[in-house]
Amino acid sequence: MFERKVYLNLSTIEKALAAFLAIPSPLGRERVPLAQCLGRVLAEPAVAIVSSPAYAGAAMDGVAVWAEDTFGASLNNPKKLPLGQKAFWVNTGHPMPEGTNAVVQVENLIPGPNEVTIEEAVYPFRDVRKIGEDLVATEIVLPVGAEIGPYELGALAAAGVLEPLVFTAPLALFIPSGSEMAPLGSISQKELQTGVKLPEFNSLMIKALVEKLGGHLEVWPIVPDDPKLLTATLRKAALEPFDLIITSAGSSAGAKDFWPGILVESGELFFHGLKAMPGKPAFGGLIDGKPVLGLPGYPVSAVLAFELLGEPLIRSWRNQSPSQRPTVNVKLFQDLPSRPGLVEFIRVRLGLVGSNLVAAPLPRGAGVVSSLARADAMIRIPAESEGLSADHLARAELLRPLEDINGAILAIGSHDNALALLDGLLRQRRSNYSLASAHVGSLGGLLALAKGLTHVAGCHLLGEDGIYNQKAVSERLKGQPTRVIRLVQREQGLMVLKGNPKKIQTLTDLARADVTMVNRQKGSGTRVLFDYELKKLGLNPDQLKGYDDEEFTHLNVAAAVLGGRADVGLGILAAALALNLDFIPIGQEEYDLAILAKFIEDPKIVALLDIIRGPQFIKEAKALGGYGFERTGEEVFATD
Amino acid sequence: MFERKVYLNLSTIEKALAAFLAIPSPLGRERVPLAQCLGRVLAEPAVAIVSSPAYAGAAMDGVAVWAEDTFGASLNNPKKLPLGQKAFWVNTGHPMPEGTNAVVQVENLIPGPNEVTIEEAVYPFRDVRKIGEDLVATEIVLPVGAEIGPYELGALAAAGVLEPLVFTAPLALFIPSGSEMAPLGSISQKELQTGVKLPEFNSLMIKALVEKLGGHLEVWPIVPDDPKLLTATLRKAALEPFDLIITSAGSSAGAKDFWPGILVESGELFFHGLKAMPGKPAFGGLIDGKPVLGLPGYPVSAVLAFELLGEPLIRSWRNQSPSQRPTVNVKLFQDLPSRPGLVEFIRVRLGLVGSNLVAAPLPRGAGVVSSLARADAMIRIPAESEGLSADHLARAELLRPLEDINGAILAIGSHDNALALLDGLLRQRRSNYSLASAHVGSLGGLLALAKGLTHVAGCHLLGEDGIYNQKAVSERLKGQPTRVIRLVQREQGLMVLKGNPKKIQTLTDLARADVTMVNRQKGSGTRVLFDYELKKLGLNPDQLKGYDDEEFTHLNVAAAVLGGRADVGLGILAAALALNLDFIPIGQEEYDLAILAKFIEDPKIVALLDIIRGPQFIKEAKALGGYGFERTGEEVFATD
Repeated sequence: MFERKVYLNLSTIEKALAAFLAIPSPLGRERVPLAQCLGRVLAEPAVAIVSSPAYAGAAMDGVAVWAEDTFGASLNNPKKLPLGQKAFWVNTGHPMPEGTNAVVQVENLIPGPNEVTIEEAVYPFRDVRKIGEDLVATEIVLPVGAEIGPYELGALAAAGVLEPLVFTAPLALFIPSGSEMAPLGSISQKELQTGVKLPEFNSLMIKALVEKLGGHLEVWPIVPDDPKLLTATLRKAALEPFDLIITSAGSSAGAKDFWPGILVESGELFFHGLKAMPGKPAFGGLIDGKPVLGLPGYPVSAVLAFELLGEPLIRSWRNQSPSQRPTVNVKLFQDLPSRPGLVEFIRVRLGLVGSNLVAAPLPRGAGVVSSLARADAMIRIPAESEGLSADHLARAELLRPLEDINGAILAIGSHDNALALLDGLLRQRRSNYSLASAHVGSLGGLLALAKGLTHVAGCHLLGEDGIYNQKAVSERLKGQPTRVIRLVQREQGLMVLKGNPKKIQTLTDLARADVTMVNRQKGSGTRVLFDYELKKLGLNPDQLKGYDDEEFTHLNVAAAVLGGRADVGLGILAAALALNLDFIPIGQEEYDLAILAKFIEDPKIVALLDIIRGPQFIKEAKALGGYGFERTGEEVFATD
Repeated sequence: MFERKVYLNLSTIEKALAAFLAIPSPLGRERVPLAQCLGRVLAEPAVAIVSSPAYAGAAMDGVAVWAEDTFGASLNNPKKLPLGQKAFWVNTGHPMPEGTNAVVQVENLIPGPNEVTIEEAVYPFRDVRKIGEDLVATEIVLPVGAEIGPYELGALAAAGVLEPLVFTAPLALFIPSGSEMAPLGSISQKELQTGVKLPEFNSLMIKALVEKLGGHLEVWPIVPDDPKLLTATLRKAALEPFDLIITSAGSSAGAKDFWPGILVESGELFFHGLKAMPGKPAFGGLIDGKPVLGLPGYPVSAVLAFELLGEPLIRSWRNQSPSQRPTVNVKLFQDLPSRPGLVEFIRVRLGLVGSNLVAAPLPRGAGVVSSLARADAMIRIPAESEGLSADHLARAELLRPLEDINGAILAIGSHDNALALLDGLLRQRRSNYSLASAHVGSLGGLLALAKGLTHVAGCHLLGEDGIYNQKAVSERLKGQPTRVIRLVQREQGLMVLKGNPKKIQTLTDLARADVTMVNRQKGSGTRVLFDYELKKLGLNPDQLKGYDDEEFTHLNVAAAVLGGRADVGLGILAAALALNLDFIPIGQEEYDLAILAKFIEDPKIVALLDIIRGPQFIKEAKALGGYGFERTGEEVFATD
């Protein structure tokens, strides 16, 4: 029998954080030698103990003199001063000899054995570094809450603050849970592919996030979904000197989500369920006065919940306000619908296309951890909103410096692994160039190109005339001069399991009752090719089981076949080779890059074309397999 | 006899860097377990080894079904499916049982003991997490040169890349030099105050900078200024497995600057002297194929030279372009003259005053390491420029997020240590508020206020009527409604060495032949008071030795007296107490904050006034000593 549970106390992000912030800070204060202070945070204002410099010193090489002795000296009227009596050799930094108050630079004097000839008068304190020029003793050098970075180390050292009073480093505990979870690297390929075991790696990410805050994270062994074991573990944790207890997974409202109930019994539950997506299955509470943050099991949810709650909590303990990411206005490539009632966080890639900073959304799934690593920015859709319209600019929080993003070529369109190769080769130039791709199919790419929302669109659209791309580009980009550059030829064909168990030979076999196919999305070049071939054969889509089951990339089609969801799918040889599938060729297609003519002289695009035309790209693409390079790099046609 | 040296080969920053970049990268490549990869950089594209997820799993809690079995089900027409045959309980993440292709969420069904009643039809793959939703095996997850942060750890773990190929961590050596240098903390107060010994702390800053790049810095003992010892140390270093050798100090063109000459003899000298200020006395070269970066001894010069040359060099070894700081347009508070021929780097504090992002320059000296810790941004004045005019916007490179700067109250005007207390108290509010002060004297502050370039101006200007601030504010801020808030009363008086060796009793003693004074700068409130008192006594400035020797803060005047540069100076009791000087009171003055009326409701200003009117400020200021609080927090007057 299934036990139905519900979220006990759904909370806004602000309320959830406020509940945590009401707990008194568990951090202590300690004196730490400066050499170990990097990343620590001051627990009291740092007051200069000594002045810097603590003595008057020469600021230049030359002779130290009493300024009045040089008055009247000039090139025409040099003055001689006896060395050791009225003039003393000094180097930069050396203390000023008694009875001197200025330095005559070595350039402005003629040295003799017993005297120097001064050719320029100096005023008092000329080229003398005064006491306290940098810092005067008792001056406040840095305020409470200042994080000690490289510069602060220098300022504190100069001020003689050699053991600043800092907050103790936050010590957090991570309790992973889940009967199916296993340590990273302990799982066989088979266990992974049957879903019997899942790798636990959220601890790795949260540990890194805590360390970036200057804290430490201890990770305990994985606890199976057993309420008794979970309770015992949480109670044991509460007795140890952790400042924050983080639980992982088991935080939702399913039959095996035990943590929130345990916290109700053993401590206090502030909230269960966060009005955020990803991040909803989070909870928060208290045990023995210690804060407990319950993170969801899905990695993106876990990271977001930690960043929304754990990070500002730890910062507050050190008198620091929540860190804020820089924001920019971006043009959405497409409408972003969203579910009202939850704040939604959308990861996006960015590209500066002309004057448009364009945002192309990455997959939204809470399990798509790659979307975090690939994201340039995060768009926050407010809870009351039903989504954002592409007609208005949206506000995006930057995850990378805008300066890096400005070097990115945006490639919205058809997906090909060769785009990732181009990205890598661009980065290897030691420039700040890169290639950010978003996969929306060939037609979607041309649409984006026509709207000025992408630099480059990868496409392979078979025209009714049997020629690739020419018709589609001419139609979609009327009045917008476009250059079409050949990237590669690709072998398209039917991908089937190794050994071809269903004995599929031609496209007509897809109409067989025992065959299920997987398709590509409408607007993709592969779909156009597939429909073109069906028409030629007189086959009706209704005859094909799985025709409406769509995937967005070749590799995802291959994965659907490999995983048994479908028996066959149309895709490129490279994808079949990648996943070790058998491949029945259908024909060669041409994969081109359409580029607006006005960007063709842009140094980024020049660099891209240079790479496409160079030997390294062909070498690396050959290694992937399934590609032809007959006219690679050539401009195959242009439109006005 | 003095040996005159010159810079051997002055170089632009670009040429100097190009010379370093021409050396082949010394870094190797190694496989490192993911748990130790934080901060490492990929040496090859990371290719997914497994798909993520590697199996089809439930994306929701509920029952797994064959979608077609639910077709037609609705609230009015529920369908019953037998458990264990056509419906199987699943929790989020669990593998889909064989023969199922969709999940009916627990919310949309009624569980029974042997069957479930389905109230909503599901389409195939509804709430099923497909194979490869996140990543498909063979997909390129991250490019070469990608730095592994928290998100990247997750993406690599999901992709099964458990031992990525990364570049070896750069290993650098730091050789401090200088006969007068001594390890931090090993120097007595007396040695420090006579300048006999200087603390070596550049190693601390450079180590932190190298560690932020994911590298390690080994620091060798300080080498005295002895060419033989220096040569032997450099040759020994060349034999060890360092990727980069950094020397510290002895890099200029003085008698004791031996390093460049040693490099000429033992290796190759690329350049000697960098066209940058601070940073000029840097050099670069090669020994036994290893790059040698010679950093100047002054801390700000050392940090800048490392950031200009060392950091981009290390990044280039890992296929990374030089890091770029975000830039903003700022309004200069005053003209910034600069010496042509050198790129000059000016550290500035920033404040957003109305719509003006205002930059107030910090002291420029290469020894003023506090200017680095206090700076919000850096303005780069090009080599060909004679400086920047306040009439034009200038470009500034941000050292802190703009979001933090937006919370700063800018306080340009007279200096008082109480401003640092207010800064600390603002920060302790866990808001992003802070107070950034720049010290230009009372009149300069009112000038900035009148131009809309500061939120707040601290001032203590005695009018001819004997009343503080009223006349000055009324005159300078005509037509700009201003509120004047009392901060503190301060005791002004003559500061003399403990025991008052010159027996100074009144201001008239300053005219004595055996007495040298130190003055405050024109436009400062203390200078106005001093001149007011002189006039009252009928004293002529020409009679006072040191009248033209000016300092910019009370503490610097106190330091000049303590260091013996002057016998006496006018300043506040707090400064005398701070440096343990004797104090001869002259009278009480009123130190106020002038605030434009239009900012008085700004939440930052509201918070500031709240703090001034609270008990904690008075408590902390009392501890500094020398303050009165009679009308603290009161609006003493307002102008229209």
